[in-house]
Amino acid sequence: MEKFEVHILGCGSALPTTRHNASSQVVRIGNKQFMIDCGEGTQLQLRKSHLHFSFINHIFISHLHGDHCFGLIGMISTFGLLGRNAPLHIYAHPMLQKIIQPQMDFFCKELPYHIEFHNIDPTQHKTIYEDKSITVETLPQKHRIPCCGFLFKEKPKKRHIIGEMMEYYNIPTYLRQGIKDGDDFTTTDGQIIPNDRLTRNADPSRSYAYCSDTLPCPENKIYLNEINLLYHEATFAESEKGRAAETYHSTALQAAEIALEAKVHKLIIGHFSSRYTDDNILLDEAKELFPNTELAYEGATFSI
Amino acid sequence: MEKFEVHILGCGSALPTTRHNASSQVVRIGNKQFMIDCGEGTQLQLRKSHLHFSFINHIFISHLHGDHCFGLIGMISTFGLLGRNAPLHIYAHPMLQKIIQPQMDFFCKELPYHIEFHNIDPTQHKTIYEDKSITVETLPQKHRIPCCGFLFKEKPKKRHIIGEMMEYYNIPTYLRQGIKDGDDFTTTDGQIIPNDRLTRNADPSRSYAYCSDTLPCPENKIYLNEINLLYHEATFAESEKGRAAETYHSTALQAAEIALEAKVHKLIIGHFSSRYTDDNILLDEAKELFPNTELAYEGATFSI
Repeated sequence: MEKFEVHILGCGSALPTTRHNASSQVVRIGNKQFMIDCGEGTQLQLRKSHLHFSFINHIFISHLHGDHCFGLIGMISTFGLLGRNAPLHIYAHPMLQKIIQPQMDFFCKELPYHIEFHNIDPTQHKTIYEDKSITVETLPQKHRIPCCGFLFKEKPKKRHIIGEMMEYYNIPTYLRQGIKDGDDFTTTDGQIIPNDRLTRNADPSRSYAYCSDTLPCPENKIYLNEINLLYHEATFAESEKGRAAETYHSTALQAAEIALEAKVHKLIIGHFSSRYTDDNILLDEAKELFPNTELAYEGATFSI
Repeated sequence: MEKFEVHILGCGSALPTTRHNASSQVVRIGNKQFMIDCGEGTQLQLRKSHLHFSFINHIFISHLHGDHCFGLIGMISTFGLLGRNAPLHIYAHPMLQKIIQPQMDFFCKELPYHIEFHNIDPTQHKTIYEDKSITVETLPQKHRIPCCGFLFKEKPKKRHIIGEMMEYYNIPTYLRQGIKDGDDFTTTDGQIIPNDRLTRNADPSRSYAYCSDTLPCPENKIYLNEINLLYHEATFAESEKGRAAETYHSTALQAAEIALEAKVHKLIIGHFSSRYTDDNILLDEAKELFPNTELAYEGATFSI
């Protein structure tokens, strides 16, 4: 199967610490790399990773708090210095372009590539990106300002052809695409060979969702149902539940509740408050309810 | 003597690498901390250092290229989150305020402290900061856009009182400030005790200059004459002298020439091009001409 990986570049919250960078991650599906959020220092984190700058063509910004977007202007500028010419697509609240365009006009004159801003409405659940193999949907979040998560889904895949059967029935190459799509095969003497004798099941379609920054949103459970991997913010421990509610963030236990109720296969928690010098307190609280939880950390790669 | 230290937070050039951050440093004189330049990631570097965020009240920006100022908005925002209330003074080309104010208006609403922008004219040599013990002067540089270096100088210091002599002549406390300033003392029977019997020489006044980004500027030698420490950019090795001239940067050897001709006591080179995986090539070239040269590196502290 193609790679489907989530690379964590930063999983801290508003205040930077020596342990955590501001929010950013890269979702790699095959050779495509999609960046989610771009806090200050993202380009440095990207440099430290084994990801190629030039493979990033799409950036999704969840919301316009600095710890999720202050790294954009530096990365845009660096892409230019590196001689990029492929267009860069940025999906964000319309205000982003208004804020970043004047900076680009001043700092990035003669950028050798085009930036295409795609306005998104964080309050709506909508497909905002689609290609032949995947879709990306927004998931409205509840934060102090408009904010959305992102759901990456592989489209249904084609069935696997069984090579021996192609030879046995001497099936011509031009029919094979149809057989991958589920066609039966009719031999020259009129015998119908059902598709399930010619093919094996398609690989499952995998899915990943990023939910940060937000209060728990049980109304998103229908979209998160049985997804492979969920990154959910867990800014606070349960002892700071009041603070979490006040600041429109979630506790680790609340993240676990969402994971449990949506029957996701695995949960990663992140966006840790700078007050925790050991994030295991958050991990322990989440695992109590949802054992298949892991901590995000800078440099981590989670494969599906 | 009071501390006089230069803390390197970043000494790379436009492209970030895994070894070098964008330009920033802190000049610490006693309890005062002055930041020079603030590239992306400066607040993270500051976190890793042992410097206190709250002691930084003055930031000097050499020029408006991104690798010297993209870290400002994040740091301004973080200072706010940390509850700062002391005013922050930023000395920069007037365009900086025009670019950063809209970002502050959007991202840093209700900042709990005031930011005072001080416009500087990088083309003029001028004293732009003065307090009771130090001055900061601009040093015009030659770069692709207006750019200036900064010269930090301690003012002449008071002489040291010799305690035993104060007792011997029974000199009243209220006269001691005058004696530190050089006054003689007249005893009750009219005898004049010359100041040099009552005091020891004052500590020398120390000085530090930051010159980056720039072509060599021999016309600044008069200001750099015999200063204690010079940080000079050395973006390129001598083999890239043509490239240095084209991009308005200096080679390591050119930095050494300035240091030698200005008779500075010690040279630090920095602002290294990302092409060098071992900066010692630059150090060797500079030391050939000016042996008392050291490489800047992230986390380094140079004491005067």
